[in-house]
Amino acid sequence: MSGIVVQNIERADAAVIDGLAACGVATVHEAQGRTGLMLPYMRPIYTGARIAGSAVTISAPPGDNWMVHVAIEQLKAGDILVLAPTSPCTDGYFGDLLATSAQARGCRGLIIDAGVRDVRDLTEMGFPVWSKAISAQGTVKATLGSVNVPIVCAGAAIQAGDVIVADDDGVCVVPRATAADVLAKAQAREANEGDKRAKLASGILGLDMYKMREPLEKAGLKYV
Amino acid sequence: MSGIVVQNIERADAAVIDGLAACGVATVHEAQGRTGLMLPYMRPIYTGARIAGSAVTISAPPGDNWMVHVAIEQLKAGDILVLAPTSPCTDGYFGDLLATSAQARGCRGLIIDAGVRDVRDLTEMGFPVWSKAISAQGTVKATLGSVNVPIVCAGAAIQAGDVIVADDDGVCVVPRATAADVLAKAQAREANEGDKRAKLASGILGLDMYKMREPLEKAGLKYV
Amino acid sequence: MSGIVVQNIERADAAVIDGLAACGVATVHEAQGRTGLMLPYMRPIYTGARIAGSAVTISAPPGDNWMVHVAIEQLKAGDILVLAPTSPCTDGYFGDLLATSAQARGCRGLIIDAGVRDVRDLTEMGFPVWSKAISAQGTVKATLGSVNVPIVCAGAAIQAGDVIVADDDGVCVVPRATAADVLAKAQAREANEGDKRAKLASGILGLDMYKMREPLEKAGLKYV
Amino acid sequence: MSGIVVQNIERADAAVIDGLAACGVATVHEAQGRTGLMLPYMRPIYTGARIAGSAVTISAPPGDNWMVHVAIEQLKAGDILVLAPTSPCTDGYFGDLLATSAQARGCRGLIIDAGVRDVRDLTEMGFPVWSKAISAQGTVKATLGSVNVPIVCAGAAIQAGDVIVADDDGVCVVPRATAADVLAKAQAREANEGDKRAKLASGILGLDMYKMREPLEKAGLKYV
Amino acid sequence: MSGIVVQNIERADAAVIDGLAACGVATVHEAQGRTGLMLPYMRPIYTGARIAGSAVTISAPPGDNWMVHVAIEQLKAGDILVLAPTSPCTDGYFGDLLATSAQARGCRGLIIDAGVRDVRDLTEMGFPVWSKAISAQGTVKATLGSVNVPIVCAGAAIQAGDVIVADDDGVCVVPRATAADVLAKAQAREANEGDKRAKLASGILGLDMYKMREPLEKAGLKYV
Amino acid sequence: MSGIVVQNIERADAAVIDGLAACGVATVHEAQGRTGLMLPYMRPIYTGARIAGSAVTISAPPGDNWMVHVAIEQLKAGDILVLAPTSPCTDGYFGDLLATSAQARGCRGLIIDAGVRDVRDLTEMGFPVWSKAISAQGTVKATLGSVNVPIVCAGAAIQAGDVIVADDDGVCVVPRATAADVLAKAQAREANEGDKRAKLASGILGLDMYKMREPLEKAGLKYV
Repeated sequence: MSGIVVQNIERADAAVIDGLAACGVATVHEAQGRTGLMLPYMRPIYTGARIAGSAVTISAPPGDNWMVHVAIEQLKAGDILVLAPTSPCTDGYFGDLLATSAQARGCRGLIIDAGVRDVRDLTEMGFPVWSKAISAQGTVKATLGSVNVPIVCAGAAIQAGDVIVADDDGVCVVPRATAADVLAKAQAREANEGDKRAKLASGILGLDMYKMREPLEKAGLKYV
Repeated sequence: MSGIVVQNIERADAAVIDGLAACGVATVHEAQGRTGLMLPYMRPIYTGARIAGSAVTISAPPGDNWMVHVAIEQLKAGDILVLAPTSPCTDGYFGDLLATSAQARGCRGLIIDAGVRDVRDLTEMGFPVWSKAISAQGTVKATLGSVNVPIVCAGAAIQAGDVIVADDDGVCVVPRATAADVLAKAQAREANEGDKRAKLASGILGLDMYKMREPLEKAGLKYV
Repeated sequence: MSGIVVQNIERADAAVIDGLAACGVATVHEAQGRTGLMLPYMRPIYTGARIAGSAVTISAPPGDNWMVHVAIEQLKAGDILVLAPTSPCTDGYFGDLLATSAQARGCRGLIIDAGVRDVRDLTEMGFPVWSKAISAQGTVKATLGSVNVPIVCAGAAIQAGDVIVADDDGVCVVPRATAADVLAKAQAREANEGDKRAKLASGILGLDMYKMREPLEKAGLKYV
Repeated sequence: MSGIVVQNIERADAAVIDGLAACGVATVHEAQGRTGLMLPYMRPIYTGARIAGSAVTISAPPGDNWMVHVAIEQLKAGDILVLAPTSPCTDGYFGDLLATSAQARGCRGLIIDAGVRDVRDLTEMGFPVWSKAISAQGTVKATLGSVNVPIVCAGAAIQAGDVIVADDDGVCVVPRATAADVLAKAQAREANEGDKRAKLASGILGLDMYKMREPLEKAGLKYV
Repeated sequence: MSGIVVQNIERADAAVIDGLAACGVATVHEAQGRTGLMLPYMRPIYTGARIAGSAVTISAPPGDNWMVHVAIEQLKAGDILVLAPTSPCTDGYFGDLLATSAQARGCRGLIIDAGVRDVRDLTEMGFPVWSKAISAQGTVKATLGSVNVPIVCAGAAIQAGDVIVADDDGVCVVPRATAADVLAKAQAREANEGDKRAKLASGILGLDMYKMREPLEKAGLKYV
Repeated sequence: MSGIVVQNIERADAAVIDGLAACGVATVHEAQGRTGLMLPYMRPIYTGARIAGSAVTISAPPGDNWMVHVAIEQLKAGDILVLAPTSPCTDGYFGDLLATSAQARGCRGLIIDAGVRDVRDLTEMGFPVWSKAISAQGTVKATLGSVNVPIVCAGAAIQAGDVIVADDDGVCVVPRATAADVLAKAQAREANEGDKRAKLASGILGLDMYKMREPLEKAGLKYV
């Protein structure tokens, strides 16, 4: 089933994507019913980045980054590369040359369930990466994988064209078909949060604001 | 044994607590005979924070942060929340809303043997957290735990009211009863260290300063 | 076999060492045929440092840093301490006092397959460390190890006097005998990279620049 | 998206399922192009079991096994329960009572990306389990999950009704739609293997049997 | 605080201890409110053992088993050794000679949050061990620890004389003071389980036996 | 540096090798000064095997077992294959066909810092393997590695022709040049152990047999 490049993928609306980025991972993840989050070992190479974009997916053999070159040709402005190796791997599939090429095509970042290298250069370029590892270990170009096929990356199932949201809290996948709906829910949560934050900052307790005292008592909580 | 909130806990003297913060984790840990250190997977969400405070402990089910709301009501100015899940968990029990509420009550930070989220907001708020994970994964409010009962957090046994010291080197627990004594020993070590540092900076070797040459020779060390 | 200090080790040429530092870990690792890289769990205590130096090796028992004092006497300006415990350990073998002493002798940094402490002080001093862990846990001085014997550190075999190169991408070992040759190859790669980077930045694809289209087709890649 | 039980799932042909069991995981995985394998941390509680069956999937909150009871009602003879927690968890969701109930409905085993308990009883019952952990830690019944929805379990994406194959080498998922085709390919591989095994046992080298000498020489292999 | 041997510890009643062994870890853990379980990385060196005994605790430096010899003198028939290193360690603190000595004093087994060796001999001797690792790595006898002081072992807090229960499901600690009460609760659970098992084996669903259909519906479960 | 096969390696004396097997890993490791032990994650696929043999080393790319075929031709009766991937990998490089071929040439087993598959077949064949993982994940044959070059496997440095000793306690490497000497020391330890075991079994304490009471008292041990 490898050796395939799917070329014309559908993407979500650009305004929806940018809206999801503004909401951030924690809010978006809540808004879609706590689904689609990658495992917490996925960490950013530098803090402060918050991006969203359409997934161009890569399924690659361990230690082989040939398909990254193939995937870069499929990038459109606003896309995010998402790479899952076919077995666990920490090698540095991606460095500053590939980032230069991806950035030239408008790519917003990389999500990789493996390693990345040249992280000082990537940081200076402002090319954010969320990865499982940082490793100088290079890769070969010998065996085919696939581009824009469904993958599982760090515990999350992803279709090409799904929306990826990533920030310091991690990485979340929003299916393309439901992205607009999720954005609406996320924005509703956000509107709501400002009010809650003000109340809590004024000293009102969550116990009271969320009316938890009665259910806690019913559940049997005892103060001693 | 869960479903209990202990309300009136005793705390160490505020000056002792602040003195321990000034000494830092490595010195305090040495001063109390190398006990009470949490496991090294506990890492700060941002570097540079150095705090001490009285532990308000939380025992919570995996993926359930109901008790955090209960615990916040028990906080006094200068306290630190310390959460241990009843089984291994990386979920994000705590985010910016809870931090806002805790900070409004004078809480100095959170120690959690699980996950935390909204870390960018927490960093901007100056609310330090030492955690096992960063994860956007939310939690439910369905099952009771307990507040201010004895817990084991990241390998360290803690009683409510014990002093927590945390900085970039990790997190250490000082039993309330011995906190003043530990502070005295820690300050003695510190006084001592300035002199040692100056000697070593001038080029005097530890081998000579600590008079190690003879014991090394007796132990059989051979120079070839 | 422990209890030995080898005193007069040979070192690589200073200009070669500095040249390797300038190339960085990823380039040096490629230049020597992708060998000598330490495992990716070795991480710097602060980002941005890039060093190279001659290895003064330490084989130490778990939780015992007696040999670090012995090793510091063997340091010459430009050296790097490299410590491997004889069994897996995360204790903090090294802190600000040892760093002060090592820095006084011109040591450029520490590579340790174990823990380090006082990381805030080390950061302020500009003394870089790559380690497996950060831990306040102290060590004893009771059992001999050896200095400047061959060790395996984080998966890499090292002889005293080998060149260590370390930066944000990890740590790489270059055998002393081949260091000049590796430098030449690394510099050739670097010269080459500027041109490639410019082409990729202009939008030329790696697929074309590296002439991959034909081999990909031969391997059976299908565009759908 | 949680709180859903899909009732009438389609299953693969029973003969196909049993044929896949006979081939075993390594052969089936090869036959379907090396896809669908769960991560290698999934280990059997006892060695020697080799099963295949239709997946009844469970998505459950961490530390909450309410949905297992719901799923058991959906089992038909020959099915396999497959549970993925919504965040990483090692709790013992399943023990001898649930196994008794599942076995009464013809269930062939359990695949769980979390913990299992009562393993001595399960072993005596001949109810095989592949799990991430063995843990006596119990779970609550407080929060809904879903049954027979798509899940990601130990790195593999699974639809209800897909064929699960499990033995001492691990666990592999075969999509229902392609199961017959994969079986044909797997059986072809098996037929082939007997002949190869006989040749290798007689001392013929793989180098010669697979005609590797020429490609190795072309690739540059040097004998010294 | 190290360098102390507490000699006259109190133990639970022998009949209570043996009763707890008969119930097994999963039942005992449930009976005491799901507390006291060690982390699931603690695994037996061979399957099938099920023991309970009074804890003789050991706090030992990493890689130093001097205190094991001291602890063996404190053993009475029916005791279990429980060792926690003062920092994470996988060394083989214990082998067949120590097991011979411990067994001669009536010791029922070892619980060690570190490594064990000579596991083939221990298996032949019928001396069960639950450990974090199996490792031939030996230890030194150079630094004091303590015996029969409170320790934290694999995430559980233990006092000397507490009852340890261990089987294939893991290791659980029952405080001495509540052991008889926990046994009563555990036996009540067991009595109850036989009836449940029979019902489930006959095909009655847990959904009906536990009357879950109504609460599931109230919680919002939907069948589609 | 890859792409090399060293053909005529020297081996230790067969009687020495068999003598080391009889002593076992724990004794041999002690006898050579506690060096050469592989990390404890290396575990046998079945218990009870105890072997020694001359190392035929393999350095292989991640997920590529081409070099295993090359190495098998280099095997002589009594040899052991030792494979280290060039970066961390858990793929199943080796299964029953390769084992058949290796066994036909007199190979005694496999040590692999990666994965193995067909473990049920290998167990039935009596072909022992110590590995980091069990995984059905197959590998490709696309990129060269080397045979009989120095490698680091699971933390131990190995030269082709070194003696490998492996049993349930792990895997140890004995340099060829010192193998006879290590055997002599190991046998001396063994002779010694029988007497010690008898004394300990009779109830004599290690405290007395090893005359530890005085040094413990000097070190400050207090009985309370």
